[in-house]
Amino acid sequence: MAAPTRVAASLRRAAFSSRHSPCIKNIRPALQVRWKTEATTSSSTESVGQLDSKGGLDGPAPAKSIKFTTESYPNIERESKFAKLSEKHVQYFQKLLGSDSAVLDGVTKDASEDIEPFNADWMRKFRGHAQLVLKPSTKEEVSAVLKYCNDNMLAVVPQGGNTGLVGGSVPVFDEIVLNLQKMNNIRSFDEVSGILVADAGVILEVADNYLAERQHIFPLDLGAKGSCQIGGNVSTNAGGLRLLRYGSLHGSVLGIEAVLPDGTIMEDLSLLRKNNTGYDIKQLFIGSEGTIGIITGISIQCPRRSPAVNVAYFGLESYEQAQKAFIAAKAYLGEILSAFEMMDGRTQKILKEVAGVKLPLEGDHPFYCLVETSGSNTDHDSEKLQNFLEHVMESEVVSDGVLAESQTQVAELWACRERITECLGHWGGVYKYDLSIPIAQMYDLVEDIRERMTKDGLLGDTKDHPVVDVVGYGHMGDANLHLNVPVRRFDKTVEKALEPYLYEWTSKRNGSISAEHGLGLSKKPYVGYSKSETMIKLMKQIKNLYDPNGILNPYKYI
Amino acid sequence: MAAPTRVAASLRRAAFSSRHSPCIKNIRPALQVRWKTEATTSSSTESVGQLDSKGGLDGPAPAKSIKFTTESYPNIERESKFAKLSEKHVQYFQKLLGSDSAVLDGVTKDASEDIEPFNADWMRKFRGHAQLVLKPSTKEEVSAVLKYCNDNMLAVVPQGGNTGLVGGSVPVFDEIVLNLQKMNNIRSFDEVSGILVADAGVILEVADNYLAERQHIFPLDLGAKGSCQIGGNVSTNAGGLRLLRYGSLHGSVLGIEAVLPDGTIMEDLSLLRKNNTGYDIKQLFIGSEGTIGIITGISIQCPRRSPAVNVAYFGLESYEQAQKAFIAAKAYLGEILSAFEMMDGRTQKILKEVAGVKLPLEGDHPFYCLVETSGSNTDHDSEKLQNFLEHVMESEVVSDGVLAESQTQVAELWACRERITECLGHWGGVYKYDLSIPIAQMYDLVEDIRERMTKDGLLGDTKDHPVVDVVGYGHMGDANLHLNVPVRRFDKTVEKALEPYLYEWTSKRNGSISAEHGLGLSKKPYVGYSKSETMIKLMKQIKNLYDPNGILNPYKYI
Repeated sequence: MAAPTRVAASLRRAAFSSRHSPCIKNIRPALQVRWKTEATTSSSTESVGQLDSKGGLDGPAPAKSIKFTTESYPNIERESKFAKLSEKHVQYFQKLLGSDSAVLDGVTKDASEDIEPFNADWMRKFRGHAQLVLKPSTKEEVSAVLKYCNDNMLAVVPQGGNTGLVGGSVPVFDEIVLNLQKMNNIRSFDEVSGILVADAGVILEVADNYLAERQHIFPLDLGAKGSCQIGGNVSTNAGGLRLLRYGSLHGSVLGIEAVLPDGTIMEDLSLLRKNNTGYDIKQLFIGSEGTIGIITGISIQCPRRSPAVNVAYFGLESYEQAQKAFIAAKAYLGEILSAFEMMDGRTQKILKEVAGVKLPLEGDHPFYCLVETSGSNTDHDSEKLQNFLEHVMESEVVSDGVLAESQTQVAELWACRERITECLGHWGGVYKYDLSIPIAQMYDLVEDIRERMTKDGLLGDTKDHPVVDVVGYGHMGDANLHLNVPVRRFDKTVEKALEPYLYEWTSKRNGSISAEHGLGLSKKPYVGYSKSETMIKLMKQIKNLYDPNGILNPYKYI
Repeated sequence: MAAPTRVAASLRRAAFSSRHSPCIKNIRPALQVRWKTEATTSSSTESVGQLDSKGGLDGPAPAKSIKFTTESYPNIERESKFAKLSEKHVQYFQKLLGSDSAVLDGVTKDASEDIEPFNADWMRKFRGHAQLVLKPSTKEEVSAVLKYCNDNMLAVVPQGGNTGLVGGSVPVFDEIVLNLQKMNNIRSFDEVSGILVADAGVILEVADNYLAERQHIFPLDLGAKGSCQIGGNVSTNAGGLRLLRYGSLHGSVLGIEAVLPDGTIMEDLSLLRKNNTGYDIKQLFIGSEGTIGIITGISIQCPRRSPAVNVAYFGLESYEQAQKAFIAAKAYLGEILSAFEMMDGRTQKILKEVAGVKLPLEGDHPFYCLVETSGSNTDHDSEKLQNFLEHVMESEVVSDGVLAESQTQVAELWACRERITECLGHWGGVYKYDLSIPIAQMYDLVEDIRERMTKDGLLGDTKDHPVVDVVGYGHMGDANLHLNVPVRRFDKTVEKALEPYLYEWTSKRNGSISAEHGLGLSKKPYVGYSKSETMIKLMKQIKNLYDPNGILNPYKYI
C-alpha cells in the first residue's frame, strides 16, 4: 500500500446560516482536511478496511492471522458428498488452464502467499481452507471447469474482487476458488445507446473511467470500486451510492452471459432496452451470489455523465430534521438529486479522532447529511440547490453547512461519508448490519441498540467494555441503514445481545435484514426474518433446478 | 361509447424556423384540431381500435362477427389432457364465487353477451370458445379457483383489461377466463417513499389519477391506460411512453402477490427499495404473461410528478435528421427528457385523411418527432428546451415545429402519436409488428418491407391490392419500432411475404421480435428469432417448474 498522501485544501467556510438568506454562489467554505486518499482503491465503503495487528490504519495484517471460518462457525460441517481434491483433479485443471491459472497451495515457494488472499476476506472475518485457485480467461474455460467439477462433485466458490461483507466470496472448507480476474476485457460500447458489454472481471472503477472518457457513467458506484468487479456487483445486486438516481441493477442490466454448474453457457447478452420474448431468466442471476451459475459477462445501460455535479454537507439537530431535509431535497432538487446520505454525529467524531480528519463544519451536530446533485446545466442546478438551501436554512431544518466548489472539495465531502467504515475498525472489530427500514423509524434502531448495550453494561469507555459505540449512517434516499457496533474484541455476549434481537426488530417493521450486502454466510441463518416460508421454498426450488448437486458456493445463501 | 366530442382549439403557429433564432417563449403555434377525445379510454395505443363493420370509427362491431382463433390457426389442437367443463365444475365455482362472479355462457338471456367480450380481443383478431368467466374478488378466491382447476385439469386464461396485442389474454378453445376486474382496490400509498400497493385489477388510469392527486406518477403510461389493468401491465412487462425516463418495470416493481397454479399464494409485496435476501423470484412473473401464476397485487415505486411538462412536435426531412435530433435531445435536455417518439410522414397523412385531424404543421414532411420534457422547474426546463430548439433549427436538423403552450395543446400534440393506431385499421385490418432494432437501422426495415410489398404487386391504391401502405413509428428513445401494414383484407400472400422475412431481418441485427407486446399466441412460433435454444430450454424449465400440468394460458408464450 502506498504511503498516505496528505491533502491540505483550503476551503473557505460556508456562509449560509438561518439568519440571513444566502447567496450560494458566494459561499466559500473553509476547512482543512487531512486524510488518506487511497480509500477508494484499497477498501470497500462498507468494509472494515485494512487494519494492522495493532488496529492502526497503516496496512493489512497477513491473512494467516485471520481465524478460520470453521473455527468461528464450528456448527457448519463439511458436506461429505463433495470429493476431496486429488492429484488427478489438479492435473486436469493445470492442463486446461496452465499452471499460472491453476494455482495450488504450497507448490512453489511463494504459493501459499498466492493462495491466502483468495481464502480470506477484506473484513478479516472469514477464512477458508482452499488449496486450489483457478483463474480462467474465457467463458469456455469456465464452462470446462464447472462441468468437470459437477461431474466430479468438487465444490466451487466463484470470486470477483472479494470485497463482499457477508463472507460470500471466500471458501469455508476446501472449495475450489474460481476467480474472474483474468476475464477483464471491455467488449463493446455504443455511444448512441449507452450500452456497455464487458467481461465479469472488469474492475468497476476501470469500467467507470472508460465510460467517463466517453461522457457516460456506470449506473452503480460504491466505495470498493477500485477492487470490486462488475460481475460480482451484478451477482450480489450491489446497491451503492447512485441507486437513488439510476435505480437497481434489475433495471439497468440488459443481458448476462453465465455458465451453469453443468457447463452450459447461457448467452443472453442482449443489447436491447426492450425485449419481451419470454421469462427474464437473467434476473434470477442478479443477486444470486454465485449459487446458480457464474456470470462471465454483462451488458448494461449506462446513463450519460452529468456535466454539473454539486455536493453539500450539513449539520442538523435531530433525525427528524434530517427527514425534513430529505423531503425538501426531493421537492426542490427533483430530477437532479443523485444522492442523499445520512451520517450520525458519532461517525463524524470517530472520523476526526481516528483518521485525524478536520471536519468540514465547526462544532458538533447530532446528525449530518450529504446531498449530491447531478445535472446537465450548471446554472440551473446551482439555482435549484440555492432554492433548496434557502428553504432548509430559513425553516431552520439545517443548522450549518458547506458546499463544495471544486472537484477536490466534492471528493473531500464525499470522504466524510465514504471513509467512515475504515475508521470504525480502529478498536479491533465491528459488528456490521445493513438494513432496510422505513425511513421514519430508521434511526430508532440505532438508539434502541445503544440503550440496550448500555443497559447490559457492554458499552463504555474502558477496556472492560467490549463495545466502543453504536453508530448509524447510510443511504437515506433508499431507506438503507448501516448500523455499526465498533468493538474492542469480538464477544459472544455482544453478539447474543444483538442477534436475533435486531433482526426481529427489523422484521416487525417489514424491513430487510440485508438491504444491499446480500446473504453470504453470515446472513444465511436469518433469511426467515425477511422472507416467508413460501418464498424460501420457492428459492430452494430455483437452487435445486440450476444446481442439483449443490456444488456452487455451498454452505451459504439459502 | 359516448358521441365524439369535437375539440376546436386555436393554437397559433410556431414561429421557429431555421432562418432566425427563435425566442421560444413567444412562439404561438396555430392549428385546428378536430378529433375524438375518447381515445384513451376506449382503445390501446397500439391496437386497431374499434371499427364498425364498414370500417368506420363510430363503434365496435359485435364480438360475434370476429373469426374464431381456431379457424385462423387451424393447426393448433386442443390438448386432450384438459377436462371439459362439467355441471359439477360450474356448481363448484358458483358456490365459491356466487353466480354474479362465475358467469356461464347461455344461462341467462344476456349471458352470451356477457361472455363474448371476454372471449374476443380489441383487435378483433382472436376469439375463443370459453363458456365460463370467473371474477374472483380476493387472492384467496383466486387460490381456491386455481387449486380446483389444477386438481381437475381445467385450463385457465388469466385476463386483465384485455388490451393485449398478441392474443395472450383471450382463450383459444374452452379455457376458463379468470378476470381480475373485481380486485380493484388501492391498498396503500406512502407519500414519503412514493410506494403504491394495489390490487392487480386496478385500471392504470385510475392508479395514475390517484397518484396525481398526491403529486406522484405511475412509472408507466400507455394509450390503453383507460382500460388496461396494472396487474396485466406487470405480467406483460408493458413498456409504453415513460420507459425512456423511468425505466422498465423490472426496476420499479418492488413486490408481487401472485397465486401459483397449485393454489399457493406467493406473498412478496415488499415495500423496500433494497432487499438482498435471496433470488428475486418476482422478476420471473414480470413479463410471464400469466403462464406461471396469476398476479393479484403489486407494490411499485412511483416517482414524484413533474410540475413542468413541455411537448414539442417537429417535421424533419429524413430519418437521419431524426437520429440527429434524438442525439441532440439527449445532450441538451439531459435529465428532463421524458419521451422521444418518431412518426413517419405516412402515419401523419393517414391521421389527417382518416380522422380528419388538421395537423400541427403545414406542409408534408417525411418524418416527425415528438419530444417531451418533464422537470421540476418551469423556467429551467423552458431554457433547456429553447437551447435544444435553437440548436436543431440553426443546424437545420429540424425543418419546422410547434411547441405546446397549455395542457390542452400537450394532449393535442400527443394525440398525433397516440391516435395513429386506431386510424390504421380504417381499411379493414393491420399487420402489426413491435420490434427492437438498433436505432441506426430501425427505419431501414420499413423501407425494405415497403419495397418488398410493391415489388410483389401487393401494395397499391386499388382494391386489387391487399396492402394500403407500410408505415413506421415508435419509441425512438428505446429503439422500439412499430411497423404497421394496413390492409384492405387479411391475406395469406401478404402474411407470407412478411413472415418470417421480417423476423429474420430483425434477428440478423440482434433485435427483438417483440419489444413490448410480448409473445402471446401470435409471436409464440417466432421466439427462436430472438432467443437461443439454450434460453428456450431454460424458459421451458421454468414453465414446468411452476405449472407442471400446463393449465395456465395454454397454447401460448413458449
